[in-house]
Amino acid sequence: MITDRQQVTAMIMSAKVSKQIKWSQAAEVIGESKEWSTAACLGQMAMTKIQAEAVGALFDLSEEAVAWLQIAPYKGSLPTAVPTDPLIYRWYELVNVYGTTLKELIHEEFGDGIMSAIDFEMDLTREPDPKGDRVKVVMSGKFLPYKTY
Amino acid sequence: MITDRQQVTAMIMSAKVSKQIKWSQAAEVIGESKEWSTAACLGQMAMTKIQAEAVGALFDLSEEAVAWLQIAPYKGSLPTAVPTDPLIYRWYELVNVYGTTLKELIHEEFGDGIMSAIDFEMDLTREPDPKGDRVKVVMSGKFLPYKTY
Amino acid sequence: MITDRQQVTAMIMSAKVSKQIKWSQAAEVIGESKEWSTAACLGQMAMTKIQAEAVGALFDLSEEAVAWLQIAPYKGSLPTAVPTDPLIYRWYELVNVYGTTLKELIHEEFGDGIMSAIDFEMDLTREPDPKGDRVKVVMSGKFLPYKTY
Amino acid sequence: MITDRQQVTAMIMSAKVSKQIKWSQAAEVIGESKEWSTAACLGQMAMTKIQAEAVGALFDLSEEAVAWLQIAPYKGSLPTAVPTDPLIYRWYELVNVYGTTLKELIHEEFGDGIMSAIDFEMDLTREPDPKGDRVKVVMSGKFLPYKTY
Amino acid sequence: MITDRQQVTAMIMSAKVSKQIKWSQAAEVIGESKEWSTAACLGQMAMTKIQAEAVGALFDLSEEAVAWLQIAPYKGSLPTAVPTDPLIYRWYELVNVYGTTLKELIHEEFGDGIMSAIDFEMDLTREPDPKGDRVKVVMSGKFLPYKTY
Amino acid sequence: MITDRQQVTAMIMSAKVSKQIKWSQAAEVIGESKEWSTAACLGQMAMTKIQAEAVGALFDLSEEAVAWLQIAPYKGSLPTAVPTDPLIYRWYELVNVYGTTLKELIHEEFGDGIMSAIDFEMDLTREPDPKGDRVKVVMSGKFLPYKTY
Amino acid sequence: MITDRQQVTAMIMSAKVSKQIKWSQAAEVIGESKEWSTAACLGQMAMTKIQAEAVGALFDLSEEAVAWLQIAPYKGSLPTAVPTDPLIYRWYELVNVYGTTLKELIHEEFGDGIMSAIDFEMDLTREPDPKGDRVKVVMSGKFLPYKTY
Amino acid sequence: MITDRQQVTAMIMSAKVSKQIKWSQAAEVIGESKEWSTAACLGQMAMTKIQAEAVGALFDLSEEAVAWLQIAPYKGSLPTAVPTDPLIYRWYELVNVYGTTLKELIHEEFGDGIMSAIDFEMDLTREPDPKGDRVKVVMSGKFLPYKTY
Amino acid sequence: MITDRQQVTAMIMSAKVSKQIKWSQAAEVIGESKEWSTAACLGQMAMTKIQAEAVGALFDLSEEAVAWLQIAPYKGSLPTAVPTDPLIYRWYELVNVYGTTLKELIHEEFGDGIMSAIDFEMDLTREPDPKGDRVKVVMSGKFLPYKTY
Amino acid sequence: MITDRQQVTAMIMSAKVSKQIKWSQAAEVIGESKEWSTAACLGQMAMTKIQAEAVGALFDLSEEAVAWLQIAPYKGSLPTAVPTDPLIYRWYELVNVYGTTLKELIHEEFGDGIMSAIDFEMDLTREPDPKGDRVKVVMSGKFLPYKTY
Repeated sequence: MITDRQQVTAMIMSAKVSKQIKWSQAAEVIGESKEWSTAACLGQMAMTKIQAEAVGALFDLSEEAVAWLQIAPYKGSLPTAVPTDPLIYRWYELVNVYGTTLKELIHEEFGDGIMSAIDFEMDLTREPDPKGDRVKVVMSGKFLPYKTY
Repeated sequence: MITDRQQVTAMIMSAKVSKQIKWSQAAEVIGESKEWSTAACLGQMAMTKIQAEAVGALFDLSEEAVAWLQIAPYKGSLPTAVPTDPLIYRWYELVNVYGTTLKELIHEEFGDGIMSAIDFEMDLTREPDPKGDRVKVVMSGKFLPYKTY
Repeated sequence: MITDRQQVTAMIMSAKVSKQIKWSQAAEVIGESKEWSTAACLGQMAMTKIQAEAVGALFDLSEEAVAWLQIAPYKGSLPTAVPTDPLIYRWYELVNVYGTTLKELIHEEFGDGIMSAIDFEMDLTREPDPKGDRVKVVMSGKFLPYKTY
Repeated sequence: MITDRQQVTAMIMSAKVSKQIKWSQAAEVIGESKEWSTAACLGQMAMTKIQAEAVGALFDLSEEAVAWLQIAPYKGSLPTAVPTDPLIYRWYELVNVYGTTLKELIHEEFGDGIMSAIDFEMDLTREPDPKGDRVKVVMSGKFLPYKTY
Repeated sequence: MITDRQQVTAMIMSAKVSKQIKWSQAAEVIGESKEWSTAACLGQMAMTKIQAEAVGALFDLSEEAVAWLQIAPYKGSLPTAVPTDPLIYRWYELVNVYGTTLKELIHEEFGDGIMSAIDFEMDLTREPDPKGDRVKVVMSGKFLPYKTY
Repeated sequence: MITDRQQVTAMIMSAKVSKQIKWSQAAEVIGESKEWSTAACLGQMAMTKIQAEAVGALFDLSEEAVAWLQIAPYKGSLPTAVPTDPLIYRWYELVNVYGTTLKELIHEEFGDGIMSAIDFEMDLTREPDPKGDRVKVVMSGKFLPYKTY
Repeated sequence: MITDRQQVTAMIMSAKVSKQIKWSQAAEVIGESKEWSTAACLGQMAMTKIQAEAVGALFDLSEEAVAWLQIAPYKGSLPTAVPTDPLIYRWYELVNVYGTTLKELIHEEFGDGIMSAIDFEMDLTREPDPKGDRVKVVMSGKFLPYKTY
Repeated sequence: MITDRQQVTAMIMSAKVSKQIKWSQAAEVIGESKEWSTAACLGQMAMTKIQAEAVGALFDLSEEAVAWLQIAPYKGSLPTAVPTDPLIYRWYELVNVYGTTLKELIHEEFGDGIMSAIDFEMDLTREPDPKGDRVKVVMSGKFLPYKTY
Repeated sequence: MITDRQQVTAMIMSAKVSKQIKWSQAAEVIGESKEWSTAACLGQMAMTKIQAEAVGALFDLSEEAVAWLQIAPYKGSLPTAVPTDPLIYRWYELVNVYGTTLKELIHEEFGDGIMSAIDFEMDLTREPDPKGDRVKVVMSGKFLPYKTY
Repeated sequence: MITDRQQVTAMIMSAKVSKQIKWSQAAEVIGESKEWSTAACLGQMAMTKIQAEAVGALFDLSEEAVAWLQIAPYKGSLPTAVPTDPLIYRWYELVNVYGTTLKELIHEEFGDGIMSAIDFEMDLTREPDPKGDRVKVVMSGKFLPYKTY
């Protein structure tokens, strides 16, 4: 009996390691970017029936698990409020160090409002560099102005 | 008597509001990008003597404040571990929702290691879009592989 | 020297109590609903120049304070993550008790996404009731579907 | 052996996903609104014997589970004090941003006291809007004045 | 300039110690029980104009402070979520040890609902006992059943 | 293998729901008040051998479980420092709102010291009231003065 | 204007350092042990009028401060729940490492109940030892058995 | 498969309750004081092979469990930073109330440094007293001065 | 089914205790230092295929577990933000006591930037000393200057 | 009036920035290593009279401040349990990632016990490296075995 989406994520991770599946393969069968597809496999996005079935075939999931992939999940992928993993922590650190900077510059350019984390997309690529390759991440989120009423 | 950098940040914020200074003006006198310059004014980066003096002139700071701008500050710009401000929270939410995705994709591309938050740069621009303009942020950080020994 | 918006909120509260100003009066001079206007006076919204000057006149604020009212503030009006005030706690309790219900019903109706807290409005009224009057709150937020990419 | 209500909630969720049951169907067999019925299925309300048996039939629950549905549960539906799920977080954010506003306006209208979260009802509907449909939530709670003695 | 009720509580405490005023004296001028009156002086209840003026006279408060006493305060009298003071901790401990007991017995007697902390009164007296006098506290709160809808 | 008292509490709760046993029945076989008896069944008090055996018979517990009922348990019945359940939260709220009041009044009457939570008793009854019945709780704890030495 | 006991503790500490007063001198004028006297000076115990005046004379305190020394203080001497100071942390560590041991041994000897922290005394001495002198602390607290009722 | 020491502690507690073994018996077969022996059985100390085998025989443990008893365990016996159990809390309260006192008196006697919690011993005894027996605890820890270099 | 790296760490710990394997033996088969090798076995580093297979042979792990050893793990080896184990706490204490010192001295020598925890190595040895042997730890991390842009 | 050591640390920091004093200069006048001296100036160590006077002369401190430098301070130099500053966080990260490794290797070499953080010394130097200079830190702490008794 599956009772939450995290159990499906665990099944996917287990199959991924055993079968040496790559996220790019998952993205291919899902038909979306590798960023959205990975997030979806890790329990952060709801898939369509077709996507869920393709993922089920790739990772050899039960029908019940495939049903769960189509449900809007309880999101949040980290076990603690401040992440302990060094790679993920660096992102938290960026929010901590640059948080007020992002706020000031977005307000200077757009006025009061936010950058959406829902109408949002992200693209992660390798940026070759003689001094050591770089991780390049392009993020784009719709600006949402605060409504007055 | 100034005893920490936050006091200087407060002085800069006060002057900025009274004098209606823009961050882009600060960036100009500092001679770096608006992202680095804003972070530096908000107490997250150490300035050179020349930069500090230019900032002091722009915001009308005391000599003592100018000296503090050249000191490597105790970084961290948020008052709580989970930010309450909606704009900044969206960034925290991205780390929470996409944290494991970033980790998986960086490891798939680069192996074990991290994306540096120190040898790092960021560029924030307005992306015109008929459905509503977007905030575009390009981040680039050097990949640092875990050393074995 | 004013260094953050909370100082302006404190000035407004002080004047409000001394001069016995009502929030409905503030809303009138601001020209928005009493909900938005109160939130703006309490440091959660940025005002236009005209609004800020009207508020400054009503509460007898300095020019510097009026300048701060026009700045997008660091939002979040509560001193603790779980509020201690019984009135506000009841709202937190509603999120706690009905949180998963809101999530399920919005997803059932709209699919995966969120209800915006930015493109949002609220109307609070007294609902006469022979068994004791009721507080009626109508909230309306734009549904934002998760983008795939 | 069932030892707490959360186990019954897990059984309901599991059956809901497998059998593709809708909350509106649950509400129908329970005979209350979809809001109360969903909350009750999610472990936040106690059902009558008739309601519990109808829910048991719908979700194919054991007799023991049906008995638990009639017990006043330990309430609270969220795994963390500050919710990580973006949809639920937006509600927490509303409490955070508008908390003091709600307090001020209720006190201005009613005096010292609270809006009940017990003698309370809620109605969630879709509000069609050419700029994008909206989630409309109407809440109504009895005002309870602080007693003096 | 007084900007919150805690400042008035501090003034009252300061005057109380200097002038050796007893809470029973405060209760007398306020015209309510010593329990309600003490809570009101400690910033947890809103006073009427007459009560506030009487308290102002007793503790020698400014007119501004008297105005604040009539405002519904942001409640919560403890500096930490788990109180460190041994006397107050014992009450927290009672909630911790007997919390589920209170829940079970109230539900057994009344069904699902709560005991109001708003339509509530309390009486604290000395109970003489040869083995050592006892603190007797009688609490009475209206039972509020959960509404179905 | 039973390894802590919480497992026994879970067994009792499970049997209570299945067999529809009332706490008053448990109190009868234990031979103490319903308050102490319920707390003991919920894992907060140690029973005598006779009491434990009677409880074991009533709830159909194993011999091992009966042995555990006689052990002084690790006390604390709540899963979080600030309880999420609305009924129990109201008690926490009372400590929060009235904590300093209880402290002041006990000190005014008795001097420095505490009200014991160990040499303590509690009686919970229904108080009929035409405006809605009330929960009445009488608590009595020995006053313990701070020792000087 | 003194508004809480911590301000008096700060005055005492300031005078102690400037005037190089020893706690044993304070104990002498107070007429109690050095342990109780130090705790009292550090804001954890209420003094009699005579004791407070003696302490006022020793540390050169104002009349107002002397009045505060006679009030039962809000106790708790540490700024964080887990102390950061290494000396005090070692005591916290002892509670952490030996906490269940103390519980088991007291219950084995006395049955269910607690060791009082109110009817309690402590004596701290130097224990000469060729391998390095030792800190010897003797604590004695009345055993309080849980009352049944 | 045993994967941490807590599992062995659970086995010991289970056997202790079933077989009614006393800690003094454990201490006898271990050949150390009852304080050290109880702490070791509760997973806070590493035993020698001979001690572990004696404990294994007494509590009827598997060979694997006996092997784990000889490993230096991850120490810390409490489930929360602030203990909820009243007996253990009283010790935490002593650290909270007397923490700064212990610090001051140890520094007055010994200078800067700490009392070791490693080169430490403890003896807990019953102190008969006509007003109610007392728990007497003698602690002795080596003083360790801060090294300069 | 293995679903995360912690399960593999548990298997390694279990085998290590049963088979009395030393970390130095693990380091030998892995072919790296004992520091890196132990961290890798404890789930903090990713191994190569050859290393993982050697570890699998040494600790008698399944093929699935060997596959997991080659995956970059979610790092962080401690169950709480502030460690309770005395040995590990001392390291946390060093960060707490010497944290600002490390910061000041690194900045004085190198300017603004950090010491890498990724391009990092560590060597732990016994330092014989007549007054008691010492633990000597040499750490070396690349200095990474903050980039301006 | 100085009431705690942090005020003196603030004075030292203020003077250090204004007068551009280096920690190595402070170490010279103190006559200890730069590591100990910096920690002492930052409020973590107690100085002798001679050292305090030298520091007072260097940083131009008042006599009262000089007296405070000789008092054993309440230690702990970080504002939050998990540090936000990237340089200091890397050290916290090392404890988090390598904490169990340090524990295992010290126990393998020395048996159960700890590395002292009191009888401890540290040396920080620049290690030239063609791939980028490194921060080298050598730490040495006495091993303290757990005492049995």
